[in-house]
This record gives sequence, structure tokens and C-alpha cells, in this order.
Amino acid sequence: MNASRQGGDEESGLPRPSELLPPLDPEQLDVLAELGRRWPRLAPYRPRTYEALPVDPDLGEFRRAEVGRGPFGRLAPIGPLAPPPTGDGEAEASTDESTDASPEAGPGGAPALRHRARRLLLGAPLRSTTLAHESMRKLVALPVLAADALSSVAYGPEALLTVLVLAGTAGLDWALPIAATIAFLMLAVGLSYRQTIRAYPHGGGSYIVASDNLGRVPGLLAAGGLLIDYVLTVAVSISAGVAAVTSALPALRPAIVPLGLAAVALLLLGNLRGVRQAGMIFAAPTYAFLIAVVALVGSTLADAARRDFVPVPPTLPHATEGVGVLLVMRAFASGSTAMTGIEAISNAVPAFRPVRWRNARTTLTWMVGLLIALFAGVVASAHFSGVVPGGDETVLSHMARLTFGPGLLYGYTQAATAAVLLLAANTAYNDCPRVLHLLARDDHAPHIFQRQGDRLAFNNGITALSATAALVFLAFGGETSALIPLYAVGVFLAFTLSQAGMVAHWHRRRTEPHRRKNLLFNATGCALSGLVLVTAAITKFLEGAWVALLAIAVFVVLASRVRGHYATVRAALRLRPGAVTHVDARLPVKEAVREQAAPREEGPACRGEEEETPQQVRHLTVVALAVLDLSGLRALAYAASLGQPLLALHISPGEDEADRFRDYWDRWGDHVPLHVVLSPYRALIAPLVHYIATLHAQRPDLTITVVLPEIVPRHPHHRLLHSHDAARLRRALRPLPKIVITEVPFHVP
Amino acid sequence: MNASRQGGDEESGLPRPSELLPPLDPEQLDVLAELGRRWPRLAPYRPRTYEALPVDPDLGEFRRAEVGRGPFGRLAPIGPLAPPPTGDGEAEASTDESTDASPEAGPGGAPALRHRARRLLLGAPLRSTTLAHESMRKLVALPVLAADALSSVAYGPEALLTVLVLAGTAGLDWALPIAATIAFLMLAVGLSYRQTIRAYPHGGGSYIVASDNLGRVPGLLAAGGLLIDYVLTVAVSISAGVAAVTSALPALRPAIVPLGLAAVALLLLGNLRGVRQAGMIFAAPTYAFLIAVVALVGSTLADAARRDFVPVPPTLPHATEGVGVLLVMRAFASGSTAMTGIEAISNAVPAFRPVRWRNARTTLTWMVGLLIALFAGVVASAHFSGVVPGGDETVLSHMARLTFGPGLLYGYTQAATAAVLLLAANTAYNDCPRVLHLLARDDHAPHIFQRQGDRLAFNNGITALSATAALVFLAFGGETSALIPLYAVGVFLAFTLSQAGMVAHWHRRRTEPHRRKNLLFNATGCALSGLVLVTAAITKFLEGAWVALLAIAVFVVLASRVRGHYATVRAALRLRPGAVTHVDARLPVKEAVREQAAPREEGPACRGEEEETPQQVRHLTVVALAVLDLSGLRALAYAASLGQPLLALHISPGEDEADRFRDYWDRWGDHVPLHVVLSPYRALIAPLVHYIATLHAQRPDLTITVVLPEIVPRHPHHRLLHSHDAARLRRALRPLPKIVITEVPFHVP
Repeated sequence: MNASRQGGDEESGLPRPSELLPPLDPEQLDVLAELGRRWPRLAPYRPRTYEALPVDPDLGEFRRAEVGRGPFGRLAPIGPLAPPPTGDGEAEASTDESTDASPEAGPGGAPALRHRARRLLLGAPLRSTTLAHESMRKLVALPVLAADALSSVAYGPEALLTVLVLAGTAGLDWALPIAATIAFLMLAVGLSYRQTIRAYPHGGGSYIVASDNLGRVPGLLAAGGLLIDYVLTVAVSISAGVAAVTSALPALRPAIVPLGLAAVALLLLGNLRGVRQAGMIFAAPTYAFLIAVVALVGSTLADAARRDFVPVPPTLPHATEGVGVLLVMRAFASGSTAMTGIEAISNAVPAFRPVRWRNARTTLTWMVGLLIALFAGVVASAHFSGVVPGGDETVLSHMARLTFGPGLLYGYTQAATAAVLLLAANTAYNDCPRVLHLLARDDHAPHIFQRQGDRLAFNNGITALSATAALVFLAFGGETSALIPLYAVGVFLAFTLSQAGMVAHWHRRRTEPHRRKNLLFNATGCALSGLVLVTAAITKFLEGAWVALLAIAVFVVLASRVRGHYATVRAALRLRPGAVTHVDARLPVKEAVREQAAPREEGPACRGEEEETPQQVRHLTVVALAVLDLSGLRALAYAASLGQPLLALHISPGEDEADRFRDYWDRWGDHVPLHVVLSPYRALIAPLVHYIATLHAQRPDLTITVVLPEIVPRHPHHRLLHSHDAARLRRALRPLPKIVITEVPFHVP
Repeated sequence: MNASRQGGDEESGLPRPSELLPPLDPEQLDVLAELGRRWPRLAPYRPRTYEALPVDPDLGEFRRAEVGRGPFGRLAPIGPLAPPPTGDGEAEASTDESTDASPEAGPGGAPALRHRARRLLLGAPLRSTTLAHESMRKLVALPVLAADALSSVAYGPEALLTVLVLAGTAGLDWALPIAATIAFLMLAVGLSYRQTIRAYPHGGGSYIVASDNLGRVPGLLAAGGLLIDYVLTVAVSISAGVAAVTSALPALRPAIVPLGLAAVALLLLGNLRGVRQAGMIFAAPTYAFLIAVVALVGSTLADAARRDFVPVPPTLPHATEGVGVLLVMRAFASGSTAMTGIEAISNAVPAFRPVRWRNARTTLTWMVGLLIALFAGVVASAHFSGVVPGGDETVLSHMARLTFGPGLLYGYTQAATAAVLLLAANTAYNDCPRVLHLLARDDHAPHIFQRQGDRLAFNNGITALSATAALVFLAFGGETSALIPLYAVGVFLAFTLSQAGMVAHWHRRRTEPHRRKNLLFNATGCALSGLVLVTAAITKFLEGAWVALLAIAVFVVLASRVRGHYATVRAALRLRPGAVTHVDARLPVKEAVREQAAPREEGPACRGEEEETPQQVRHLTVVALAVLDLSGLRALAYAASLGQPLLALHISPGEDEADRFRDYWDRWGDHVPLHVVLSPYRALIAPLVHYIATLHAQRPDLTITVVLPEIVPRHPHHRLLHSHDAARLRRALRPLPKIVITEVPFHVP
């Protein structure tokens, strides 16, 4: 596992296109050669020529203009000799206009329109070779990667105070000590992640570190925690961002849910387009937010200094709880959500300029410093200005309005807060699909998460994250305070396991320099993270942490079962000596398989799905007909032209209709044996399935090809007017082995 | 149109099973024989024998036990010699236990469970020959068929008073005159329908009468009105029934919507099961309701008589409108919803005992008499007892509570009201699917509405009605008063057109006895209904009638387009001299069709989809492979065994992977020509579609069979873990002519 992953990691953690195509091992190659020897030399074919074919597969004429108008005209043509499309080196939106040029203007109608819209929204496709090797300066990397961590200052202190305020003034007295503890925790975890950066210069996400050093299940636990973390980062950041907006513009308060969903849609679209996080445009919000908070904290503390640091007494609601260990621990757990995002830099080491790990470390140090300063500053400012959570306004907004007045500066603060929170949500869009990709590569998640779209984005992961985050946002009504209890558990589970993995890492490498010191740092981080994890899980259990814990447990079980399924499938598909599949022995009709009709003598016939050579395949073609019209005759002609034993089947609702059909058949010339099945219950599919299942039971050595005429209307919406019997039949016959469904299309205007 | 319909009508209006299989006309038979002459005599086949086949199509061993355990075990086995299932003459629920016996207890797992649940809920399948010929005594027919009409007394008077109360006492003074007008209207319409019963003894629904006598578009207008009527009958009856329940049990008031949806679900299930309306169980609620209303009106009027008919002054809210023509007309339009359901008997003439039309007429007379009595009685009672609409209680409930006190009698009244309203909703379930069936038979609606399920019910129509009614109920929050404005328009449109049709009917039959008198009755009914229609459409337009009018207009346009599409399809499928389809000339790739590669000399090859004989079909088989595993090799073996020109296609993400695949191919023995397509954008489907579209463009005479390996996991939920490339490819290639998709299944555990 480790070795194969290392291969992908070497190129900045991005997947190589061949990852979905694992190479064959020597045993498989031997089996392949052996199977090939058993094949007959097909008569007219001379190897490495196309003589026997009625077409030239090289498609000398295969040029863009020929096929550019189809529903896939959006994609440049694919061919062995196709020139690269104009404007190929793109990673920017600006090239869209140039590639969006002429050929799609054809008369394709709806598809062309759809594809124009898609290209406008998502941009032109990107080649696999354009995998961007970002290399960010520290001054860009800091704001981009720290957005998630720093933005949590917008809700972390508030979450802390929300709990304490329940115990009135006595509770608020605990704000500063708890904040100091959290700041210490930030320091410890930050130091711990410095070690991870050094040890995993190719990117050390919690999943990788935990599964490399601790094993599969801890790795999955970490991954589960991470996934929960990403979903909640999106949901919490957006709800906090919307709260920042509605604090400034109370008129928008009824639109909280639509605003939040619009933000998710924006992130979805931007990331499907393949947004790059480099560039000053992504750095701006973080710096703007930094400036705003520093100014806010500065002026608040300056005010406080003028009052000799006598706090303004807050106007408190009646205290409903006393100060106790539980309350303090709950406040601590809530406040520690301000630490989320601290791991972002350790994931992104390859994005730095060389010497990568050193630059990443420096950036991490800066980030942790800023985070501690901002967090402590905000809690202290709230303390001295007497602002407490409550009502519809955020603490930050309240403080800014008190300090700056309701003018331009206040608006700026709120705008910067909303922007940095949107950027923080975007961070999850960068990381979550990659974790899903890693999980899929290890067979722990559906393989569709390994696919990259034509903009090189992991479309499926991005869509899954958006859908889940939108659901969570909706389920909790866009309330930040309702989401916080779920948040801490996932984050700190991933933190703890990641650092435990580092402890194991150092424990094993006895020769490493500084091993002892490194181990100490990581062990401290691990122990403290674990403490927060346990605190959060216990004190927040009923408030929502159980949801997160349950989700993680479900994820681990599901991921293990997914892995088991893929292993089974891989074994079944593997080229192996004496390859024989016993699939039909497990199917519902197994008891029906009777040894009655002996297979014919000549040649080795197969009873399961084990035909690897053409001479093993015994055909029976069955044409199912409802009426004798052009589509039915065409299906008959197609089936007959295959030259295999052929049987026509007609399902009739009654004797009269059956006689009528037999009469037509005779008039037509009775070229093909016909069998009529009566269906007194009017069903079409069930009797067909019955009949074919019985045929299969009688002669399990036959491969039965069921040929069906299918009417294809020109406009897809007209499909509603036609029966979908072919699709229903395909679903019903799918469990039976050796049944091949072939639809012969008949196009109508 | 008339003639073909008459055929179905003769058997009590129920469809015959052969309706979906129209017979071939002489021209088509000639073409069929001509096409047959062009077929080659397929070598080993001797007509009327099965010698050339590897199986015996008669399936001597085709017995129930063999296939009973599959997913379709629910259905008794179908075969030419299959004995009828045990307990065949069923139309009752009681036979379920006997047919639900042994064979499904097999190890089928999930399918068996699902089918047991289905049989438990819906009952055993019914043979087509069990089409019940109901024949009801008048004493049963009256309550069953009058439920819809009589139950409207539960909301009609209230709807009338709700409008008048807006103008205070002055408004309420108009209640009795308007009620008298409506009673007169009921009489006139009732007399008019007596004529329809005589003229259409096989059932004279508005759609049939209007389209027979007035033409297609009036018929469609009537059908649109009817469909709206049915949907609103369900929605209004259920909302009024729920109101009856919540009036008695105010604690249930917050559950109005769930209660209503539960009622829809109950009706859906009961009707999918194929509920018969005969039997005293359906007659009971109507009689119970009748007794309750008669008792209520009787005691209220007796009280009033003791006070010398001095009305109790009602406690009125402040009048918000003055009495004007508009108000009176609006009240009139609202109150006339009490007439809905009056046409039910004329649809159901064949269900009566002979002499059918005479018994139906007598029943209609009784029904109209009762309706007028109840309606007038309720309005008068409300007048004398001073009850006005308002608050959360219905007028009927309020009156019953005043008169009977809150005891057993009151509860009985409410229960009977709710029961009769549920029965009224059920009436729509009997009629709506039949109208949809008639529309489908005339090509005005999707043909799926012609299909009967295994319980002989029109499942699709029943489901469509349930879904629409549930949506309407939800959209209007289950408020009867909000639904009323939509109601009248549809009903009276159907009434008017039906009676206009009768006028035309009599106008044409100059020899008919009593023609003049009949014409007069129908003309009066038509004129009065039309008056109500116009009144309702104008006065209720903004309140909701526009929705109904718009829906009817949309329906007429859609139905006409559906008919047009079916006509086109029928023409395209028709066996006709020199049948040639020019389908590909209309497809997006038409410009790509180049005359470049000349078809081979021998034999008549086809360029469109016009192959009716095997020798016209020119094959090219293309196997698309992603990897070389057992599933891929099986697909190759299958394709090669067909013995047609074969090309293997591999889509590769890069040069390295392509070289690797070519290497594997050589080791295997290079038995089949291979072509590798590079896909730098990682897409699988798009390059395949491009390639095959280009092949087709180069050689439009070839029929290209695309063979794909498909991995079929044992459990359907595992399908999520596998790619659905085959399905996507099928969708993408569907618009192209002469492309046949064949999936070779590979079953994995």
C-alpha cells in the first residue's frame, strides 16, 4: 500500500492518469498468453493489419469538423494524430473565448446550447498533462492556506462565550483562562505539525500518516474524522459568513438559508471549474480580515487602556446554570473549534517553493503565531468591551459596531469576515476530494472519486461534498451554534490520530536525529488533542457530537465493506490459472438449473460465465416481438444476420391474439421458428423473464442473446410516450448469467 | 374513431386485452408477404419445426416450481399449457392466503420478501378474463354512485355562505334565493343527464359524448375539465373530510397535511389492489351520511318551527364588502360546487341490472331528488340556526354540535361525513383512470395509461391521479376554501360540453322519437351549465380559476401534440410499399455523412435504418475495452463468436498506457485488430462516441454493434461501486442510427 501510494505522491500528490489502469503482474501475463494460445486464429485476420475490416480504423478523415457538432462537441476530438486544441497551456479562465470558437456554432441545437453553457460556466477542458505544479511564495501561501484556521476566529471565541454566558458573570470570568489554555494547545499542536511537515514532505494528511503508521482502521477513523471536518468546515464557515452578512444587513435575515445555499452553489461551480488557489485574488480576503481584526482588537484594547482596563459590565440574561467542571469543559470544547484548519499547511507541502519543507514550516509558525494572537485578542476584546453573544448579531459584528460605529470601517470588517469564511469553505473543497481520491485508490471509497473531470477537478468528490454540506446546512437551519457541537469531534479525532501516527513513526526510526525531541513534541500534541477529543465527545454528546461519532463509525464500517467488495471483484476478474467463475451457483434460479438437456458433443462448452475463447460460446438468439411492424422486422433481420440459432418469441394476452399473430407469421413466410407465450395477466416482462430463465435452466451452457426492437424518438422528451420495456427487461434479466440484451434501435422523427 | 371505440364499450366499457395490439390492414399484410419473399430461406430451418434449435421452445419441463423463486415469482407461471393458478375466480381479498402459499418461501431472499409484501398489500394477480361484470341493485348503486354528489353537501353550502358572510347580514339574506337557483340548476342538469343515459347505454362520459358529437377539440376540452374535476374531487373531498375530523377532534388540527396524505395513500393502495365498488361496505357510508343529515336538518327545522321560524341572529364579523352583483355571482359559483358528481351515474350505466338504462334513470332521479333536498335543507338549517362559516370548524359540525350536543350523535355525524367524503374521493379513482385510458386509446395521452396491472387496475392512471391530487392538496395546504375556486370551472366545462354534445346528437337524429323534448332538456341543461361556467371563470378568475383554465389549455395543447407524435411514429413503423426510413438525415451528425467509402459491391446494402432482410445487414462489431481482465476477454470471445468483422478499441489516457496495452495485446496473441484511441482529457465516453460516430459517418451502410463488458454485482446496492459507462454510452449513442449496443454481463459475487 505504502509503495504504490508513494508513486503518486512524488508528483505533488496529484493522481497520475494511469492510476485507474493497474498493470498486470507476471502471473496474469502468463495466463493471458495461455488463454491466447487457446484462441483459434480467426480466419481473415492477419496480425497488425486492418485488411479484414470494412473500415479503416485509423480514420484518415477523422478531423474535428466532422464530429464537432454532436452532443460531445464540447470536447476537442480525440485521435492518435489529433493536433492539440488551440490555447492548450491553459489553467486560466481567459483562454475560454479562444477555444470556444467556431465549430460548435453548427446546427446541433440543444446539445450545442447545453455545451456552450457548460463551457461558459466551467471552461474548456484541460489535458491531463497540464497538471499544475503550483509553487507558492510564502506571502501567498500563508493567506491561502491559513484562511481556514484564521477565519475560525470569527466563530471560535463566540462559541466559547456562548457556553460561558449561561452561567452569567461568574461564567464569563472563565473566558480568559480557557482562552489561554486553547492558545497553549494551538502552540503544542502547531509544534507537532512542524514534525509532520519534515517527515512527510510529499504531503502528510491525517489519513496518510495514520494509516501508514498505525494501520488500516486508525487510518479510516482519521479519514472519517477528516470527512466530517470538511463537511462541517463548509457548513460552519458558510453559516458564520452568512451571519456576518446578516449582522450588517438585518434585512437579509429571513434569507439565511437561500444565501447559504447560494454560497454552496458558488463553491461547487468554482471548484468544478477547477479553481486554483494560487494568485493574489485568494490571498486578499485573508489579509483584509487580518487587518480588520487587528484594527478592531487594537482599538478595543486602546479604549480599555483608557479605562485602565476596567471591563465594561455586560448586559447579561439571567444565568441558567452554575459554574461547574462540566460547563467549563463544554466551553473549552466549543472554543477549541478555533483550531480547525491548523493542519492545512501539512497537507500542502508540495505546493511551496523549494526548500519546500523549510518554507512550509516557516509559514506554519507564522500562522500559529497569528492564530494565537487573533484568538487571544478577540477574547480579550470581548471581555473588556463587555460584548456577549446573544440576539441575531455576531460577537465580532457587535464589537466592530461598538468600536468603529456603523460606518465604512464596520462594513469593511463584515465584508472581510464573510470573504475569509467563504475562502475557508473553499479550502475544504481543495482537500476533501483529494482525501476521497486517496480513499478510492485504497479501495475504501467508490472508484468514481478517482475520476477527474475534463477540468482536472475531482468532480464527484466536489459534488458529494457540496450535497452533504448543503444537507447539513439545511438540517441545522444555517445556525452556527447548532453546528459547533458536531465540529470538534471530527477535527480532533483526525488531529489525535495523525499525531499518534507521528509518535509511532518516530518510535520506529531509531536512527533518526532529534528523534527523542520530535517524539516528545508529537506525543504532547497527541495527548492534548486526545484530551480535547474526549472532552468534546463527552460534554457535547447529547448536543450533537453523537451524530459525528455515529457518522464516523458508519463510515469505517462502510469503507471496510467497500474494500471487501472491491477485493472480491478484483479476484473474480483476475486472469488466473484455470479461471472458472461459479457465478450462477449463487443466483436465485440456481435450484432451477437442471442437468436435463445434455450439451452438444463438439467442442468444450461452458456452464458458467467462463468463456474466454470464441469456440466455447454456444449461441441462442431470441427475438422478442410484440407486434410485426418495421421495427420488429428490422430486429428480426438483425438477429438472423448474426447467423446463430434463432427463435422468435411473442407474448400474447389471449388465444385470439396469438392465433392472429401466427397467421401474420405464416403470411410473412415463417422464416424463423416462432413460439407464442400466453400472458393471461397482461404482463410483458414477467413472462419473458420466466421463459428465458427456464431456457437458461434447461441449457446453462448456452449464451442467450435477447434481441429487442427499441423505438427511439428524436426528442428525448418523447421517450415518455413510449414503453421502456427494454430497460425493464434488462434490469429483470441482469441477475441471470449468460444472458446478453441487445436493443436494435429504430429511430422515429 | 367512433367505430373502434364502440367495440370496447360493448363490454361494459372495460378495455379488451388486445387493444394494445391493433390488427394489420390488407395493405400491410401484402407488404408483409412481399418482405417475406425477399428473405432468404435460412438454411437449417424447416417451417413449423424446432429442429434447428438447441432447445425445445415448448419447454416441456416449464413448471411453476422451476422458476417460482425468481424476482417475478409473484406471478404465476406463464406457458401455453400452464394450469390456472389456485383460487382463480377471485375478485375478493379472501383468496390471497390460498395463492400466497408454498413456492415463494424459497431462498429468493429480498425479491421473495418484496413480493410477499406486494401480494399482501395488493393481492394475487387477476386473469384478464376475470373482468368483473358488476351488476348492482338500485339500492346499492344509489349510495355507491351518489357518494360524490351527496357528499358535496358537506362543503357546497359552506362555500356559498363563506362568500355571502363577507357582506354581513345583508349578504346572508341572499343565501336562500341563491340556494333555490342552484336547486333549480340541479334539476335541469339532472333532467339533461337522463337523456344522456338513454342515448349512451354503454356509458356516456363527457369525453365520449363531446368528442363523438362535437369533434376532437371539444372532446379534449371536456376531458381536460374532467381530469381537473377528478383531481379536485380527491383534493377537496379529502380536505373536507379531514376538516370534518378536525372539527370533532381539534387536537388533530396541526396534522391536517399528514392526515390528508395518509388518506391519499390509502386510496392509492386500495385502488392498486383493484377495489370493487359493489357491495354493501361501500353503500354504508352514504346511507349513514344521509341519515345524519336528515336527522340534523329535521331537528334544526323542528327547533326553528318552535320559534315560529324566526332565525337566530348570527354572530358576524364586520362586513368587508357590500352586496353587489359580483358578490352574489361569486357566491352562486361557489355554491354550485355542490353539483359535482351529478354525472357519475351516466358513466356507469353498464353496471346496473337490466334494463340498465331504465334502472340508471330511476337511480339518477332519486339521487337528484336527495341532493336537492339535502342541499336546500342544509342551507335552510344554517339560516334558521344562525350558523355561519368561520374559525376552524365546519358549518355542518357547528350545526350538529348546536343541535345534538357534543355527544354520540355528534360524533356519528362527523364520522359519517368523513367516511362519505373518502368514498367520494374514491369515485374519482374509479373514473379518472378510465378517462385516461380512453384518452390513451385515442392517442391523446401516453399509452402507458392503457396498461392494466396484474390486479386489472389501471395502475399508471391511479398513480398519476394520486400524485397530482397529493401535490394539489399540499400546494393549497389542505384548505377546502382555497381549492373551491379551481373546482367549479373544470366541472362545469365538462357538464356544458357533454350537454352541448347531446344537443348536437339530437339535432342530427331527426327520426328519433321525442327528439324535440330531449333536445329541449339538453339545451336547457347546457345553457345553465354554461352560465355557471362563465360566472365561475369570471368571478373566480384571480382566486384560482385561472389555474384550472390554464391547466385545461395546456392539457389540450399537450394532448394534441401527443396525438401528433403517435401518428408520426405509427407512420414510421407501418409496413408500407417501398418502406424506407430516412432517419439519419435528421440527426446532428448528418453533415458528417460523407459519401467517401463506397459500400461493397455484392448485395443490396442499406444506408438508413431500412434493413428488413438479413442479407441487407452489413456488420461491424466493435469491442470497447478499458482493461484486459476476464470480463474483457469474455466480451472479446462473445464478439468473435458472432463471426462478423471485429475491431477491438481501447481508450487510453496516455502514450505510456497505450504502449502497455499494445504489449499485453501482443502477448495475448493479437487475435483481433486493435485500435487505441488516446484521450488526453481522461474522458471515456466522449472519445468512444466520437470514434463510433465517425465510423458511422464514413460507412453509413454498416450496422455497428458495440460490445461492452459489464460487471454485474450480486447485490444491486453494490452497483454504486461500479462505473455505469455502459448505460452512459447507450444514452450517448442512442441518437445515432444503426448502432446496436450489446452488454456482455460478467457476474461477480
